[in-house]
Amino acid sequence: MPKTSNPPPFTLHPQLVEDCHPLGELGFCHLLLHRNASLPWFILVPETHLKDLLDLPAALRSKALDDAALVSRFIKEELDYPKVNFAVIGNVVPQMHLHVVGRSKSDPCWPAPVWGNLKVSAEWSPEQIASMQHGIQSLA
Amino acid sequence: MPKTSNPPPFTLHPQLVEDCHPLGELGFCHLLLHRNASLPWFILVPETHLKDLLDLPAALRSKALDDAALVSRFIKEELDYPKVNFAVIGNVVPQMHLHVVGRSKSDPCWPAPVWGNLKVSAEWSPEQIASMQHGIQSLA
Repeated sequence: MPKTSNPPPFTLHPQLVEDCHPLGELGFCHLLLHRNASLPWFILVPETHLKDLLDLPAALRSKALDDAALVSRFIKEELDYPKVNFAVIGNVVPQMHLHVVGRSKSDPCWPAPVWGNLKVSAEWSPEQIASMQHGIQSLA
Repeated sequence: MPKTSNPPPFTLHPQLVEDCHPLGELGFCHLLLHRNASLPWFILVPETHLKDLLDLPAALRSKALDDAALVSRFIKEELDYPKVNFAVIGNVVPQMHLHVVGRSKSDPCWPAPVWGNLKVSAEWSPEQIASMQHGIQSLA
């Protein structure tokens, strides 16, 4: 009897691994924090082989958006950022990933979108990373 | 007895009116087509005074995303674009508006996001506008 082949295990795109700190999993998504600490830039990766958010079945799309909304609430309520930009682009890194980015008028590339425009760089400390991971997971 | 004051009627932000052709209404959103015809760039405006997508209550967010998914399906199936970028930014125009943008490797700013990077300009003909309006509304 022929062996049935299991789907390959889900792995994050190497560019996302290189660009981000892993913060664990939310309800439906892997949660990442962009290494550039000049503003709070989170990236959520749902386990799907589809590439565009609007191609997801509505129920899964809703789960991904619930995770993104939780991160947005953390950015606004805990980090005190007044605005959150949300985007799913994927022209360079094809694996579906949702950007959830805290923005304020005093951030280093306001009002431009961050993609391609964030020239300032900074690093999160291990304490800041742990604090954000704990803060977001405690809202979940 | 004091008169109760009605909320002011919903009006589109003047910048969106200036930048776009109005294509009518979908289930929950006003549908606009960006005047720059160098790629299919649709903008959906839900009637809300909230500014960020992820602040919308989940049920309303889902309605807005259903509208966006319908436009995405039109872009892929009818206009034959392989990819759709989705974003809700609003750093310049604060009224909540959802970008649904058809992308392909041969478009004039691939792989950069369109915001701030689309330098080529073109105009839709009245026939193209009417055809897109009819095509999207017929999927609704």
